[in-house]
Amino acid sequence: MSSPRSELLSINTATVRAQWNLLQIIDGCARHGIRMISPWRDQVAAVGLKEAAQRIRDNGLALSGYCRGGMFPAADRTGRKVALDDNRRAVDEALTLGAPCLVLVVGGLPKDPDGRIVSKDIIGAREMVRDGIGELLDYARSAGMPLAIEPLHPMYAAERACVNTMEHANDLCDELGAGVGIAVDVYHVWWDPHLKREIERAAGATPSRLLAYHICDWLVPTTDLLLDRGMMGDGVIDLPLIRSWMEQAGYRGAHEVEIFSANNWWKRDPDEVLLTCKFRHAEVS
Amino acid sequence: MSSPRSELLSINTATVRAQWNLLQIIDGCARHGIRMISPWRDQVAAVGLKEAAQRIRDNGLALSGYCRGGMFPAADRTGRKVALDDNRRAVDEALTLGAPCLVLVVGGLPKDPDGRIVSKDIIGAREMVRDGIGELLDYARSAGMPLAIEPLHPMYAAERACVNTMEHANDLCDELGAGVGIAVDVYHVWWDPHLKREIERAAGATPSRLLAYHICDWLVPTTDLLLDRGMMGDGVIDLPLIRSWMEQAGYRGAHEVEIFSANNWWKRDPDEVLLTCKFRHAEVS
Repeated sequence: MSSPRSELLSINTATVRAQWNLLQIIDGCARHGIRMISPWRDQVAAVGLKEAAQRIRDNGLALSGYCRGGMFPAADRTGRKVALDDNRRAVDEALTLGAPCLVLVVGGLPKDPDGRIVSKDIIGAREMVRDGIGELLDYARSAGMPLAIEPLHPMYAAERACVNTMEHANDLCDELGAGVGIAVDVYHVWWDPHLKREIERAAGATPSRLLAYHICDWLVPTTDLLLDRGMMGDGVIDLPLIRSWMEQAGYRGAHEVEIFSANNWWKRDPDEVLLTCKFRHAEVS
Repeated sequence: MSSPRSELLSINTATVRAQWNLLQIIDGCARHGIRMISPWRDQVAAVGLKEAAQRIRDNGLALSGYCRGGMFPAADRTGRKVALDDNRRAVDEALTLGAPCLVLVVGGLPKDPDGRIVSKDIIGAREMVRDGIGELLDYARSAGMPLAIEPLHPMYAAERACVNTMEHANDLCDELGAGVGIAVDVYHVWWDPHLKREIERAAGATPSRLLAYHICDWLVPTTDLLLDRGMMGDGVIDLPLIRSWMEQAGYRGAHEVEIFSANNWWKRDPDEVLLTCKFRHAEVS
């Protein structure tokens, strides 16, 4: 493709969320020549949707995605209705912000309104996810907003997402039809022996289901299940290999850096973090 | 089957390893009417192989497995040879102890002799695993000791085992032929959408590949990747459902409780731990 690698770099705003609010992140990315971001709903809400959209436009930034919808399973119909309504609002926000897709972290076992898991039925949870995406899809299709299912690592199956492989995400896309694709995050899927096959399968659909590509690294040791992701090059994921699979499958979209790192990157100077993202993206990913 | 459920309870000796040495564990299990154990090599070595074997016999205990062989990938041929030799000794020990199988934690990415990961090539690591099991199998077959591949949770892919699904373990068994089967540990595979299918596939082989069944629970939240396993009933795994799949597939072997729990069960009175294992095994698993 014609654009240089650096044009494809996007910063998921969670990567510097501990240091900066969204407006500061937008300014910081613009200052460092980073052209894309992927913001989170709570960060948008904290500064206001209109203000966020305006500042993104004013700085000439594009979005690589919007984080996030999902969390469909709930203890009862009321809970699932609340989740669906909230997801429709997420679609609206994604439209306002000009996002190319709404990323879905689909949810794990059903929870009650206080966040307590109320069932061990993961098969049933997966049905709620399928039905929830299906209902949201009616709305998202008419709004023209693609939904991107993000398979999460199996260690999040109980709490965050019971879709844990590319194969499962592809199966859901097969079942649900147009308007839904996949966000490939290396952190979640690097271990999967079927990763290459399922990337190719996703790309073989028309249009391609490869809607987003997230990068970071898997640290050894990993000291926290959620907040110990590594910067590209600091871990064990063969990032050039997985990128080559994405590219061979025809993916030409953003490389979105998403790092949750309570004890390292969230404690550093955010300008240093962005510079490191730029350097590592160019050199080792 | 005719024997009551309680006859099937086995204690993986890691469950009380922080409190007791192996001889104390043997005595404790005998005292509490627990008829089976699955000891670890380092615990056996600490008290002496002959002494351990004698004490197990004297107390009328049987083994449900021996932990563990594996760790095949290494940085070079010398490292892989060292691993293979060590695995042959593990087979010998398993024979001396009267174990029904040697459990294999196959290893993750290749390490150097100092334990540092030297490669990100997980596909190559999986080839080393296949070749390593294949070489060990020549020895294990002639010794009459079945090898049980234990698929480990994907969060251990880098460091401990790059075989992370039942499907992959079944594929390896297909390729390697007689003498190798699978140890099903709910902690590692509970999230897998293909779990039931792959249990049935394992059982469909002749003889059945279902060589061991390990139980514990997945805690929410989980605070440590390795040492925060839960007691049956304290987490989110639908243990009766998975047991029913094993039983429907014809499995009649032990239910082996294996809990690594640095901050909870390893700090409790070991007699209380064993009593809790007995109660929870009978009531909620």
